[in-house]
Amino acid sequence: MYQVNVMAPGQDCSYPIIISPNLLSECAPCLSSLEGHTVAVIADEHTGPLYGSTVENALRTAGATPCLFEVPAGETSKSALQYDRIIDFLLESHVTRSDTVIALGGGVIGDLTGYAAATYLRGVPFIQIPTTLLSQVDSSVGGKVALNHPKGKNLLGAFLQPKQVLIDTGTLSTLDDRQIGAGLGEVIKTACISDEDFFSSFEKWQGRKAMLPHLPEIISHCCTFKAGIVRQDPLDHGLRMILNFGHTLAHALENSMGYGTLLHGEAVCIGMVYASRFGQLLGITPEGTDIRISRLLEAYDLPHEMPDNLAPEQLLQVMALDKKASGKILHLVLLDRIGNAVIHPLPFSELSTLLYRSWR
Amino acid sequence: MYQVNVMAPGQDCSYPIIISPNLLSECAPCLSSLEGHTVAVIADEHTGPLYGSTVENALRTAGATPCLFEVPAGETSKSALQYDRIIDFLLESHVTRSDTVIALGGGVIGDLTGYAAATYLRGVPFIQIPTTLLSQVDSSVGGKVALNHPKGKNLLGAFLQPKQVLIDTGTLSTLDDRQIGAGLGEVIKTACISDEDFFSSFEKWQGRKAMLPHLPEIISHCCTFKAGIVRQDPLDHGLRMILNFGHTLAHALENSMGYGTLLHGEAVCIGMVYASRFGQLLGITPEGTDIRISRLLEAYDLPHEMPDNLAPEQLLQVMALDKKASGKILHLVLLDRIGNAVIHPLPFSELSTLLYRSWR
Repeated sequence: MYQVNVMAPGQDCSYPIIISPNLLSECAPCLSSLEGHTVAVIADEHTGPLYGSTVENALRTAGATPCLFEVPAGETSKSALQYDRIIDFLLESHVTRSDTVIALGGGVIGDLTGYAAATYLRGVPFIQIPTTLLSQVDSSVGGKVALNHPKGKNLLGAFLQPKQVLIDTGTLSTLDDRQIGAGLGEVIKTACISDEDFFSSFEKWQGRKAMLPHLPEIISHCCTFKAGIVRQDPLDHGLRMILNFGHTLAHALENSMGYGTLLHGEAVCIGMVYASRFGQLLGITPEGTDIRISRLLEAYDLPHEMPDNLAPEQLLQVMALDKKASGKILHLVLLDRIGNAVIHPLPFSELSTLLYRSWR
Repeated sequence: MYQVNVMAPGQDCSYPIIISPNLLSECAPCLSSLEGHTVAVIADEHTGPLYGSTVENALRTAGATPCLFEVPAGETSKSALQYDRIIDFLLESHVTRSDTVIALGGGVIGDLTGYAAATYLRGVPFIQIPTTLLSQVDSSVGGKVALNHPKGKNLLGAFLQPKQVLIDTGTLSTLDDRQIGAGLGEVIKTACISDEDFFSSFEKWQGRKAMLPHLPEIISHCCTFKAGIVRQDPLDHGLRMILNFGHTLAHALENSMGYGTLLHGEAVCIGMVYASRFGQLLGITPEGTDIRISRLLEAYDLPHEMPDNLAPEQLLQVMALDKKASGKILHLVLLDRIGNAVIHPLPFSELSTLLYRSWR
């Protein structure tokens, strides 16, 4: 068992991330503070049948009264429609401010459920049980929750630190290769911005098979790094931006292709290669970094080039609306070497030149 | 000019409330930090025509780029529909996280606009310009923002401390008697829970006419008291509850009668009389307090009895869903004397007895 503590000082709270291979069936002691309270568990149509009853049993053992609600799986559920359904469910279940809401699923369920928990009655206690690699290493840490809007991803949202994050690495065995890959994209992103040795480990393993036995430590490494960043910048006012390495293009890519066509972590992979090229063109990133990252992505069966049917104009149009655009200046996250990220302010107008020169 | 500083320590910020009779036309210096940024001003169909151009001019003088959006007036605008319209306007106006949103209007505009500012891009800077007595003494202080839901008032919401609150007491001259009365309800509530001398001043004035010249001090007194409470309990975990004196019944009343039939402050007046009776029946509130408060309300032309067409059952049903119900225990706010409030936990089941015995 690994435990990582996350401090978010501006928000007056800290919470534990607990990582263990069989946590769901053993988590009742972690939930003892919920005794006597209603606990609404929000899952999707995959995680509900797979883990719903295990979590409900753990809650009953802890003395809580669980109720389970399922939404459809997939990015399209981060919508006002599913949000409204969850709010109606919380009202019907008479959930009060002293009760708790649990997200049981991947990043979509975490973001959607967290946003409902953040806004229902001005905020109710929230626990994350992430069940995908992507959500275990990334979205469940840091308190960002959001809905998509027809005009862009995560345009509505809030900051809500969970009371705890419970990571059962056993849940990864039910994921298909593509979902594991989407999580690996964020893992390799973390390696790029945090630690060249960590990056080199992946180069040594040269593929998923040799990496698999190391997953619990890998998850713990990623959570520890992200927790350190969140502690310094809980409300995303600056430093936290480095976590967005590869994300400016990734968000635009996901939006342009239609949410769900590319998984978020897959889009991040392509975004990292392009961010490296931007950095090389600007003289910030060492030459060849894009090739080194591309080769690693290829070894792990991850995408590293733009989809054929996409034009740079489509991405530029979507990025003009990106929430990370601060006024007319875009804050690009670039590597000054593998293992360290820097923030580079760039007038939005200069981005198109970089994008056209990087395009293949 | 009066200035009250509000500290909300858990949320890592403090902000000024500035109170002055001609503030709107003189507020450009207060807005100098907005230079170079887009500022979205959200008003209603009354405050837009009355004050929109004055505020836009002040913003232009300060070097900002204002844009104005109007929603219909009235409590029904605290809806998902108007929220969606405001979000669309912010997106169309390319408002980013470094821009600012201003609420120009009463409590409905403050709550609605504040909720949009809290959730748009996970939160953008927010300024309150309250233009009703009720919002000047109450809802603009403390950071609570919310929407109504078909099943109850303020069921969706957030905490968002504004960057500043600008109170132009000149705006009160355009309010009708009933709106002034709704604000007076909260003012007298503040007197009941904060300061018997302040309460006695109103008894001395014996009506609105003699009170009017004292309005700027009265507003400053109310803001100072509320700011002190908010500083100690920014996220509404306990003490802040005493501000809800009269509110448990008031919310149920507004809901039962249909939002907008009774103004919020009017409902609070009736709620205070009943909360006094509950306290008297429980042996906590001195006998005769209900009569003393009723007489004062009467002198100020404020309601102090239940509407004829309402039955206690209707209120009880609505209260079962009230968000302040913590589990099955209701936290009643009662006076142990005029000038001091205490919180009294009561099983919800015992409330109906109190309500029937108090009913006239």
